[in-house]
Amino acid sequence: MAEQGTADTGPSAKATTKAVLVDAGTRLILEQGYHQTGIQDVLQAAGVPKGSFYYYFPSKEAFGQAVIAQFAAAYLARLEQCLGDTTASPLTRLRRHQEELLARFERRGCRGGCLIGNLSQETGGSQPRLRAQLDAVFTSWRERYAQLFREAQAVGELRADLDPEALADFYVDSFEGALLRAKVSKSPAPLRVFLTYMFDGVLQGRPIEA
Amino acid sequence: MAEQGTADTGPSAKATTKAVLVDAGTRLILEQGYHQTGIQDVLQAAGVPKGSFYYYFPSKEAFGQAVIAQFAAAYLARLEQCLGDTTASPLTRLRRHQEELLARFERRGCRGGCLIGNLSQETGGSQPRLRAQLDAVFTSWRERYAQLFREAQAVGELRADLDPEALADFYVDSFEGALLRAKVSKSPAPLRVFLTYMFDGVLQGRPIEA
Repeated sequence: MAEQGTADTGPSAKATTKAVLVDAGTRLILEQGYHQTGIQDVLQAAGVPKGSFYYYFPSKEAFGQAVIAQFAAAYLARLEQCLGDTTASPLTRLRRHQEELLARFERRGCRGGCLIGNLSQETGGSQPRLRAQLDAVFTSWRERYAQLFREAQAVGELRADLDPEALADFYVDSFEGALLRAKVSKSPAPLRVFLTYMFDGVLQGRPIEA
Repeated sequence: MAEQGTADTGPSAKATTKAVLVDAGTRLILEQGYHQTGIQDVLQAAGVPKGSFYYYFPSKEAFGQAVIAQFAAAYLARLEQCLGDTTASPLTRLRRHQEELLARFERRGCRGGCLIGNLSQETGGSQPRLRAQLDAVFTSWRERYAQLFREAQAVGELRADLDPEALADFYVDSFEGALLRAKVSKSPAPLRVFLTYMFDGVLQGRPIEA
């Protein structure tokens, strides 16, 4: 296999093809899962010649790691954009972010769900490297949410008896469960229930109007 | 393929072999997922001769349906045994059931998780019949938890402002999310966070000691 770039496969063409493969893989894995997504499917969906996969990735596992890394970075950037907007109060930003996720899920026909949650279920028991990477992604999300919860406590918007890290775990995990249920029921209703109970019941401790 | 039973494959031997296949399939699917579990793997794990699978199941999908049906029935029976024990208060029963699930998950080395949740993630997007069946299983669980929450409200143990059905959905979905996270982090900690926040924060509305 060529190690040297040619006019067509120089550093920038290589980076582009690699990105195209990761994008195609992300879509396919979201739709049909990791194990059901063959390397040939990815090449075909990406419009990349057969046989060139191993020029970019040493293994399917390495490809899976690249897909996870890109999805996690993109999600964290979107999260930061919304949670870092200090023109609104911390819980207002959080609620806005959650409503945006819900709207996107509905626009996509209640399909796909969260790539990180899906891969955790599917590969968490059998692929130790992917499992460790997915665990680290969840931890990075937990840290970002915990930071927001600390801000909310500082301005008196969140109950002071809640531990920001544990609450962030409960928040992230419950959201993943609601998304799983929304996918299997093909309905956004579980995400609305999550929003109501999490915000009214847990974060703000006010009467729940479900 | 034989339709008539012989001395070795009469109704009771047939029922037994079928059950052995379903048990083996359940273990394998919990460990490695649905798509990764081949029919030959199931036959081998069950110690059943090659080629006899289609005598018992018309397709892998039908086999998946049998695995789901058995897991769901077994879980509902265990749930009923615990939640139906009226010698304890409703929320005491629920907490006891949850502690038992947590202890079992730890004994099994934080592996496997919930077959229904796992299959929902893995097949929810690609297998319409399994998806519909999994959705119905979640609905049956929701109904059983909602019944318990109504009991808890009747004896004044649960806040009256909570809608039993919506709360049951939030409970079941959040638990599935916590189990997913426990599996990927190989730790029971997310299940303990779930217990603390769900019981203290949501169900009983008292200060959370996390």
